[in-house]
Amino acid sequence: MKNLSSEELKQSSLDDLNGTCEEIRKEIFETVSVCGGHLSSNLGVVELTVALCRVFDFPRDKIVFDVGHQCYAYKLLTGRADRFSTLRQEGGLSGFPKRSESEYDVYDTGHAGTAVSAALGIAKARDLKGEDFSVVALVGDGSFNNGLIYEALNSVRILQTSVLIILNDNGMSISPTVGGTKDILSEIKTGAGGAERDISLFERYGLQYMGVIDGNDLKETVSALSSAKEKLKTGSVLLHVNTQKGHGYPFSENAPDRTHGVSPDRKVKGAEEEYGKALGEELTALAEKDGRIVAVTAAMTDSLGLRPFFSAFPQRAFDVGICEEHASVLCASMAAAGMRPYYAIYSTFLQRAFDEIVHDVCGQNLPVTFCIDRAGISGADGETHQGVFDLSYLAPIPNLTIAIPKDVAEFRAMLRASADYGRPLAIRYPRCGKVCDRKEEIEFGKFEVLHSTMSNIVFMAAGERALTLAERVRERCLRNGKDFSVVNARFLKPLDETLLRSRKEKYVVTLEDNVAIGGLGEAIARYYRNSGKEIYCFAYRDEFIPHGEVASLAAKSGLNEEEIYRLVGELYARG
Amino acid sequence: MKNLSSEELKQSSLDDLNGTCEEIRKEIFETVSVCGGHLSSNLGVVELTVALCRVFDFPRDKIVFDVGHQCYAYKLLTGRADRFSTLRQEGGLSGFPKRSESEYDVYDTGHAGTAVSAALGIAKARDLKGEDFSVVALVGDGSFNNGLIYEALNSVRILQTSVLIILNDNGMSISPTVGGTKDILSEIKTGAGGAERDISLFERYGLQYMGVIDGNDLKETVSALSSAKEKLKTGSVLLHVNTQKGHGYPFSENAPDRTHGVSPDRKVKGAEEEYGKALGEELTALAEKDGRIVAVTAAMTDSLGLRPFFSAFPQRAFDVGICEEHASVLCASMAAAGMRPYYAIYSTFLQRAFDEIVHDVCGQNLPVTFCIDRAGISGADGETHQGVFDLSYLAPIPNLTIAIPKDVAEFRAMLRASADYGRPLAIRYPRCGKVCDRKEEIEFGKFEVLHSTMSNIVFMAAGERALTLAERVRERCLRNGKDFSVVNARFLKPLDETLLRSRKEKYVVTLEDNVAIGGLGEAIARYYRNSGKEIYCFAYRDEFIPHGEVASLAAKSGLNEEEIYRLVGELYARG
Repeated sequence: MKNLSSEELKQSSLDDLNGTCEEIRKEIFETVSVCGGHLSSNLGVVELTVALCRVFDFPRDKIVFDVGHQCYAYKLLTGRADRFSTLRQEGGLSGFPKRSESEYDVYDTGHAGTAVSAALGIAKARDLKGEDFSVVALVGDGSFNNGLIYEALNSVRILQTSVLIILNDNGMSISPTVGGTKDILSEIKTGAGGAERDISLFERYGLQYMGVIDGNDLKETVSALSSAKEKLKTGSVLLHVNTQKGHGYPFSENAPDRTHGVSPDRKVKGAEEEYGKALGEELTALAEKDGRIVAVTAAMTDSLGLRPFFSAFPQRAFDVGICEEHASVLCASMAAAGMRPYYAIYSTFLQRAFDEIVHDVCGQNLPVTFCIDRAGISGADGETHQGVFDLSYLAPIPNLTIAIPKDVAEFRAMLRASADYGRPLAIRYPRCGKVCDRKEEIEFGKFEVLHSTMSNIVFMAAGERALTLAERVRERCLRNGKDFSVVNARFLKPLDETLLRSRKEKYVVTLEDNVAIGGLGEAIARYYRNSGKEIYCFAYRDEFIPHGEVASLAAKSGLNEEEIYRLVGELYARG
Repeated sequence: MKNLSSEELKQSSLDDLNGTCEEIRKEIFETVSVCGGHLSSNLGVVELTVALCRVFDFPRDKIVFDVGHQCYAYKLLTGRADRFSTLRQEGGLSGFPKRSESEYDVYDTGHAGTAVSAALGIAKARDLKGEDFSVVALVGDGSFNNGLIYEALNSVRILQTSVLIILNDNGMSISPTVGGTKDILSEIKTGAGGAERDISLFERYGLQYMGVIDGNDLKETVSALSSAKEKLKTGSVLLHVNTQKGHGYPFSENAPDRTHGVSPDRKVKGAEEEYGKALGEELTALAEKDGRIVAVTAAMTDSLGLRPFFSAFPQRAFDVGICEEHASVLCASMAAAGMRPYYAIYSTFLQRAFDEIVHDVCGQNLPVTFCIDRAGISGADGETHQGVFDLSYLAPIPNLTIAIPKDVAEFRAMLRASADYGRPLAIRYPRCGKVCDRKEEIEFGKFEVLHSTMSNIVFMAAGERALTLAERVRERCLRNGKDFSVVNARFLKPLDETLLRSRKEKYVVTLEDNVAIGGLGEAIARYYRNSGKEIYCFAYRDEFIPHGEVASLAAKSGLNEEEIYRLVGELYARG
């Protein structure tokens, strides 16, 4: 669709704008079908976004999108329609707000719960600088489970500024929203007994409450936003908006969870399987034998593969909502009381629970297993979703074992061995890997020698991406009659010092799907310090990795087959 | 005082127990005067704790102390009175709950906001195992600002178990409690207009609300706890208790913030000054010239030295309560809007904001300065308070500059240079250092050569503790006519590669007040990889460091003068 000037938007009739909404919806649907991305969340806020652009004056006024997975309509309406077909493609538009992309994007998001804090900060800076504009935070009800939101609400009275918080209530996180907050919100929506009292919850935090309005009704939303904008003169406002996730596309309306994120590649790669599928199957099998096993997730049951476990053991399966910190403490305490909790989560979101991993789980040396999905470069979601820091921030934590399976079969073996391991354990893995149905056993802390040769070179690589790369380089060398040893360095902690001690090769090449600083390469370099061996580390550079195609990003960021092949050539030459 | 059996406690009359309270109060006061520790928080809960031990049957019933800085009376009443004089001394009783110390301690704490999650986990495990006992969480109102508590409250209905949450409301964090939640609570206490509605906030989360009772009145508290215990049969309960922080000691009642933590050593070390004092002075001076500068703290204005800034610039100073995550996003967003935020916090508490440092501050490359106090071994508070991980978890974050001043003068210079630096900056420093009033300039990313010699050995050390140690070892060597070079490696990121490249010494010895994994030594070893130099790293071992005297703990944990001196001797011998 063509770019729409904010003048056009402000001048057109509401009828025309309803047409614009249909156009936007169509554009989003068609683009996401090709590029992948967040579908249902974006379809749900089309009218709301059009109304926002009609009532407010962006970029003079500022808007912060919580999580940012609902900003497509906003991008289409703020001069990016002509580039929208490049959505989530390398070098194209980001699927999230990006200050580097447009002056209309004032704050980058990707993780849940930051928008109210961010809006308050922008508004406070405005006050201190004596400027005058409106600041809006658009937040889903799923994020209202996240503790960060309450820390921000607690500050509304402290900061004495004015922001408009739009609570976009569609009853969904990626999974349906759960818990007490959700009950409070639905009570308000249904106007049930306590509605009045529930509303006062927001008023107590210093917010003027407005709502509930139908956010898929353009007319109603425009007028509500207009009066909200007025109210901002006397302080902060919470506008409670009811929207339908996936609105306008029945199949998405009916399966908002499965259409939350749509991934085109999913279909094409028939030779791949998801690690999450293995997690669901193995954990369910383990739980049948072991009553101590419980599973915890922070609003991502399906995308982590836990559905089978939740179906088989509803009493031992807990979706606590977007509460990464609480989920960790819940696991630690259940472990302290004799259970064997498994906490499945994406690598990037586990960053939220760093303190609880240190303070609660490892500080008490408790048998919690972290199943860390989407580790390494996760691709099209970009900077805020790459799982390339976990090895580095987990390595310094005492008592923690860190495992990096080389493929799904090894992941299954690690899970089977984990139940009786009895210590804090982190297993990190990518979303997909080659189909792999080997059956094997694993011993914690033991590396695996994949190829042992007489050459002077040994590759030590961890994880499927790195080992696949090592094998590809080796195949090219074999064609020239050259060979090198390959070790599956599947434990960052503890390192297999027995194996490391035994290696005779002069040149050690490390490969990992993580930033170089604090990763596997450094750990191996530390071990071989002053040993006379030469160490060459391939990992990601010290920079944030944008969105794009996984293999291509990996090659650009430091895991580059040509560079590695070239190095090996030099090493052969030096002998 | 002598150990009291739970039988004695249950059989004695309330009058006798009031006597016991006075005894306990006296014991706490006298012990803390000698050993240091948390005074006002412990004095406030004496009656409450006696009542808990009277009504509940520990260790069969379980109690989790949020933060854990109010567990002294509990320790005195659970078989540890005879050892209480060893409080916070190396090898003695911990100042916090410790599972390793007593079966009466079921969950270790130290950081705020974990108790409700932990109690829910323990209770849920109990249900799944078909056991029968009560679980209590004792939480201060300060922690009710922390997001983790709301994530836990949101789970009360999800987990369908039963816990007793005691809200110990004394109106204080370390600083007075601030924000909307506090207003809600005081409204309940004063029975003001909205009290009824405020109470419903807790009921909405699935809690039966009881209160407000006077937690310093033994009789009233015993009967309230008894009925709360009954109510637990039908679900979770929130008992709102009003206590007076420092109760029983007027000077502590009147200055609960300054008597929150009492430190005996403070007096004796006349030759030392606090880095926090320098922070307050420099930041205030900078702010007079630069209107962009704002200061943010999470409930620790005084202990961080920010009082002068808060007095001079109340409009630009923000205490947001115990909300480490929100404080980071607030800083990031104010920076995005053109301000220059300084976020002062203890090293161990900054762990709570790890994701926000990555996702909000560094992901957007925003000019936020983290002033990280209590870095390194902080001593008597033990495992949960040592600041020995920060270099490791900060190092892998792109865009972040990490500075480690060698003394207060250098810290002041770094602060003066920071305002115009315009990038994410972390400055980490211990609580105290030698009095030091040199005036100097600093260039970011440049090391400082303290001694350049013709020897084969160079020490690269960061921070006051490490450099002092280097100097001590050097003085001993000088007495034997030996010398070595010393470099002040004051930036972990960026490393001063120009200087590193220029060093000719064969032996490089690194020293740092942080765990070895992911620290300065590894960064320098990484740089010198394959250079032929030999690298020897002194830092803390991969284990949690208990409570004790700072220098002694450091020596035991890996920064040991004798070991270093011995190594240097060997290196001289090898030439």
